Amino acid sequence: MKLFRFGAYEQEKPGVALTNGELLDVSAFGEDYNEKFFATDGLNRLADWLTINSASAPRVEPGFRFGSCIARPSKIICIGMNYAKHAYESGATELPKEPIVFFKATSALVGPNDPVIIPRGSEKTDWEVELAVIIGKKASYVDEADALSYVAGYAIHNDYSERAYQLERGGQWVKGKSNDTFAPIGPYLITKEDVPNANNLDLWLSLNGRKIQDSNTSDMIFQVGFLVSYLSQFMTLLPGDVISTGTPAGVGLGMKPQVYLKPGDIVELGIEGLGVQKQEAVAWKAI
Amino acid sequence: MKLFRFGAYEQEKPGVALTNGELLDVSAFGEDYNEKFFATDGLNRLADWLTINSASAPRVEPGFRFGSCIARPSKIICIGMNYAKHAYESGATELPKEPIVFFKATSALVGPNDPVIIPRGSEKTDWEVELAVIIGKKASYVDEADALSYVAGYAIHNDYSERAYQLERGGQWVKGKSNDTFAPIGPYLITKEDVPNANNLDLWLSLNGRKIQDSNTSDMIFQVGFLVSYLSQFMTLLPGDVISTGTPAGVGLGMKPQVYLKPGDIVELGIEGLGVQKQEAVAWKAI
Repeated sequence: MKLFRFGAYEQEKPGVALTNGELLDVSAFGEDYNEKFFATDGLNRLADWLTINSASAPRVEPGFRFGSCIARPSKIICIGMNYAKHAYESGATELPKEPIVFFKATSALVGPNDPVIIPRGSEKTDWEVELAVIIGKKASYVDEADALSYVAGYAIHNDYSERAYQLERGGQWVKGKSNDTFAPIGPYLITKEDVPNANNLDLWLSLNGRKIQDSNTSDMIFQVGFLVSYLSQFMTLLPGDVISTGTPAGVGLGMKPQVYLKPGDIVELGIEGLGVQKQEAVAWKAI
Repeated sequence: MKLFRFGAYEQEKPGVALTNGELLDVSAFGEDYNEKFFATDGLNRLADWLTINSASAPRVEPGFRFGSCIARPSKIICIGMNYAKHAYESGATELPKEPIVFFKATSALVGPNDPVIIPRGSEKTDWEVELAVIIGKKASYVDEADALSYVAGYAIHNDYSERAYQLERGGQWVKGKSNDTFAPIGPYLITKEDVPNANNLDLWLSLNGRKIQDSNTSDMIFQVGFLVSYLSQFMTLLPGDVISTGTPAGVGLGMKPQVYLKPGDIVELGIEGLGVQKQEAVAWKAI
C-alpha cells in the first residue's frame, strides 16, 4: 500500500494512492496514521476496509498539500555517518564500528514539499537525503533475523541540519537537527511488501537543479535489519517511530568551499519507488 | 497546585493533592496531563473545576501506584554537565560555555517508585537526580526575560544512564539514556506559583541509605529561564515537554572506583518541595 496524508498542517487527513494513480481520501476509515493505528494492526484493517470502500471513497481534489506521511511519532532516531564517503567528507578519519545514533525533535516534522525555514541567524543549513524506516510494532531486544517483521514501511526523509548548531555549539548533535521544518517525511509511506529490498534503492538530491547526492542504500555501512535490532537494545521502538538511516556523500558541509542554503534555493530529492520531495528555502521570520 | 497520576502503567488517571494532604481522583475532569491539557489552559481550567468539585471528588484509595506526573511528552530534553563539580567528576577539563543538550527517548518514562531495570548485559547503570521543568505553552525564540511564563511547573527526574552505552559505544549520548524505566518523573508536578525559586532548591540522592548526591539548584551553571530561552532557539518546545536541568556531583561514574547499580540496590532521591522518589534496581528479563 501507498499511504499519504493531506490537508492543512496539523489537520491532515489520511489518504491512500491506488496503483492506477487515483488518490483516495480515507477519512471515513476514521483513523490517522499514528502510534495507535500501527499498534492495532491498522495496515491490515485499512487494507480490508479498502476492499469494500475504495470504489466509493472520495478522490482527493487536485492542488492539495501533502502532509508528512505519518502523524507525529514518539521518536525520530537518526543514524550518523552510515555511508563511507559521507563519513569521510564530514571529517571522520575512520568508519564507525557501530551505528552512531542521535535524535531529532519530532516538532521538526513537516510535509515533503513544505518550505524549509532557515533558522534565525543561521548560516549553515544543510540537506541530507535519507531512507526512513517506519516501525510497525513495539520492538525491544529484537534479533536481527526477525527485525524486518517490526517494520511497517519506508519513506523519504530530508534530515536537515544546521552545521554550526550541530558541531560548533557544544557537543551533541541534536541541537543542529531539531529546528522546525527540519524533518520533511513523505510524500508516501510505502508498506514493506511493496519495497522488494530496502537495502538496494537509488537515492539522490539536487540543489537548484544540479544533482549533488547520488547513491544507493546498498552503500549503507549498517543495513535496515541490523539497525532495527541494534537500536532495540538501547530503547523500545514504538509503532510509528522513525529510523532515518543516514545520508550519502554530497552534503554542503563536505564541499570545498562549503555550500549552505540561502532563501530561494530549491532542494529536490527522491528515493527509488518512494517518490520525490521538493523544498524551497525561506528565511525565518516572526509569526 | 500539586498534580499526580496514579494507577496501572499506561492506564494512569489524573489526581490532585490538596494542601491538607488529601489525594483527589480527578478522573471526572475528563483529561490527562498531556500536551493538549497544557496547550488549552488546562491548569487554570482544572483549578476552576476544583473550586466546584473538590469536595465531591473521590479520594484515591491507599496502596496505589504513582505514575509519571505527566503523560508521555513530545520530548525529554536533558542538559549535560550543568553543575561544575559534576562536570569535573565526569572528566571535563573545563566548564561548558553554553548548555550541552541531548535527548532521552520518551519511551523511558515511568513512575517515581517503579523499579529501574538494568538493561540486558549492562554493567554501568548510573543515577542522576535532576530538577525537571515542565513546559506549559509552545515556545519558539523566547527571550530569557519572558521564559518563565512558558513554564507550567517542576518535578523530580532521575536521569538514569548506562555509561558504557553513553560513552563507549560510538559518539552520541542518547544511546545510554533511553532504556525503558530510565526516566522516572514525579511523584508530583508542582505548578510554578508554588515553587518560589526553582533556582534555589536543595536536591539529594542516596544509594542503599547513604547520601551521595547533595547540592542545590543554585549551583547550576545555566539556570531555568536561560535554558528555556536557549533551547527555544534550536527547537520549538511544546506544552508538556520536559527539560531536565542536569545533575550535581556524586554519580557512580565519578567515584573511585566507579560504582554502578546491581539488582537489589535501593535509590532514593528528592528535591525540596517536590517530594521524593524510590527505585529498586532489578535485572532485565524477557517478558
